[in-house]
Amino acid sequence: MYEYTRPVYYYETDQMGVVHHSNYIKWLEEARTEFFKDVKLAYVETERLGVRCPITEINIKYKHPSRFGDNFKVFLKMTQYTGVRFRIKYEVINDDGRLLALGETSHAFIDKNHKPISLSSAIPERHEEMKKLIVEEQL
Amino acid sequence: MYEYTRPVYYYETDQMGVVHHSNYIKWLEEARTEFFKDVKLAYVETERLGVRCPITEINIKYKHPSRFGDNFKVFLKMTQYTGVRFRIKYEVINDDGRLLALGETSHAFIDKNHKPISLSSAIPERHEEMKKLIVEEQL
Amino acid sequence: MYEYTRPVYYYETDQMGVVHHSNYIKWLEEARTEFFKDVKLAYVETERLGVRCPITEINIKYKHPSRFGDNFKVFLKMTQYTGVRFRIKYEVINDDGRLLALGETSHAFIDKNHKPISLSSAIPERHEEMKKLIVEEQL
Amino acid sequence: MYEYTRPVYYYETDQMGVVHHSNYIKWLEEARTEFFKDVKLAYVETERLGVRCPITEINIKYKHPSRFGDNFKVFLKMTQYTGVRFRIKYEVINDDGRLLALGETSHAFIDKNHKPISLSSAIPERHEEMKKLIVEEQL
Repeated sequence: MYEYTRPVYYYETDQMGVVHHSNYIKWLEEARTEFFKDVKLAYVETERLGVRCPITEINIKYKHPSRFGDNFKVFLKMTQYTGVRFRIKYEVINDDGRLLALGETSHAFIDKNHKPISLSSAIPERHEEMKKLIVEEQL
Repeated sequence: MYEYTRPVYYYETDQMGVVHHSNYIKWLEEARTEFFKDVKLAYVETERLGVRCPITEINIKYKHPSRFGDNFKVFLKMTQYTGVRFRIKYEVINDDGRLLALGETSHAFIDKNHKPISLSSAIPERHEEMKKLIVEEQL
Repeated sequence: MYEYTRPVYYYETDQMGVVHHSNYIKWLEEARTEFFKDVKLAYVETERLGVRCPITEINIKYKHPSRFGDNFKVFLKMTQYTGVRFRIKYEVINDDGRLLALGETSHAFIDKNHKPISLSSAIPERHEEMKKLIVEEQL
Repeated sequence: MYEYTRPVYYYETDQMGVVHHSNYIKWLEEARTEFFKDVKLAYVETERLGVRCPITEINIKYKHPSRFGDNFKVFLKMTQYTGVRFRIKYEVINDDGRLLALGETSHAFIDKNHKPISLSSAIPERHEEMKKLIVEEQL
C-alpha cells in the first residue's frame, strides 16, 4: 500500500485541541495526489490532457483524535477501477501506530465541461495503467 | 426540516471552477450549529457546560457541482438520538432547486478529557430537549 | 461604510480557543464580495466579462481575539481606485463593539491569461461605477 | 536562512486556476513551525510550557501566482526579538526560482488566559535561545 506522511499543521486544530474533522478529507486528497504522482499518473498531467476526476462520494470513520505535534500517515489502495469510476480506501495512522480514521472515496471522470467521460476512450494509455493499480479488497 | 442558507464564497472554489468537495463538510457543520442555536441548544453553551460532540462518521454523496455566484441551502434533520450518540441527515440544494449533495453525520458526546459520556447524565435537561428533535426517517 | 456580518464558524477556531488568524483574510474577501454585489458590480459578473481582480498586497493588524459564539462585523471602504488598481480598508468589529482587526488589501485587474489590464478599457461602464465608490481617507 | 518546501495542494487552488491568496498565510505558519522545530524551540513544546505566540500583524506582497503541480519554498529569518515580541520575514519562491511573495509577521507572547507576557521571565532558557536567532536585516 502507498504511504503518505506529514506533520499536523497548527491551523488544522480547533478549539477542542485536536485536528478539526474537515481536514481529514484534505489529507486523503494529498495522499491520493502523491500516490498518482508516484505511479506516473500525476493528476496535474491528467488535467492537462483534459480529464478531471472529482469525488462522487466520501466516507470517513473517525477513530481517535489527532493533535498538533503529531505526524500522521495515510495508507491507501485503489480497490476498484471500471474505466469510468474508481474507488480508493485509506487508513490514517498516528506516529504511535494508533488508527486515527478509515476513509473511502469514489471518483468519476469528467471533461472540461463537467460531462462524464470514460478514461479508456479519453486517454487509453492511462486506462491501461489504472487497471494495474487495483488491489484486491482486504485491508 | 431546518433550513440553512448562504452564498458560496470565492475561496471555496478550486481550479475545476466549482466548490471544492472539502467545503461541504464545513457547510454541514455550519447548518448543524445554526440548527442547535435555533432550538435553544446552542453548541457554544453545550461546550461551556463541559460537553462536546465530535463527529464519529461522515458520509457525503456529491450529486452536482456548486459554483461561486450561487447560494446553497442545507436542509437537515436529526434521525437518531440515544443519549450517547446522535445522527443527522442533510440535503444540500442549489438556488434553482437542484440537489447538490446528500450527507449524514454521526456524533458522540465527550468531556474535556476526550472521554465518552452520556448527555443524559451530564446535562439531563439537554437530554430531554434532544429527544424531542428526532424526526422519523423518510427524507 | 459598507457593513458585512456573520457568526464565527466552529471550524475557524484553533487550539488557542480563538479564531485562527488565517480566517480574517477570508472574512475580508467575503465582505468585499458582498460589497461589490451590493453596488451592482458583483464579482461573479466581472469575471464573466473576462476580468479578475487578484489581491496584490494584504496587511492585517490583529487587535483582539474572536471566539466561536461571537458574530463579527466587517466595515469596509474603497480608498483608492486608478483604473488599474484599487485599495480597500477594513475594520473587523465584535458583537460588543470591540475592535478585532484592521485590514487593507490592494488589487489589480488581470485577464484570463493573468495579464494585467485596465478596467477602464476592458469594461468602461464598470470603470465609471468604480470611480464613484472611492471614499476619502479618514477611518 | 531557513528553508521550507512542499508541493501545492489541489484544494489550495481557486477558480482563477492558481493558489488562493489566503493559503500563503498558512504556508508562512508551516514554515515558521518547522523553523522553530529545527532550532529546538518547537512551538508544541512552548505551548506545553504555557506560552503561546499569536500573530499581531501580517503583511504579504503577492508577486506571481502559484499553481497546482508546483513546489514552493519558503525562506525565512527572524529579524527582531525583544523578549515580548518577535518579527519574521519570508520569501516564497517557486520551483523555477521565481519570487511568488514577500511576507512579514509580528508576534507577541501570551499566557493561557490570553494575557501578554515576557518570554524572558516565563521561560528564561528559551529567551536566551531566541536571542541567538536574530538575523541582521538585509534580505
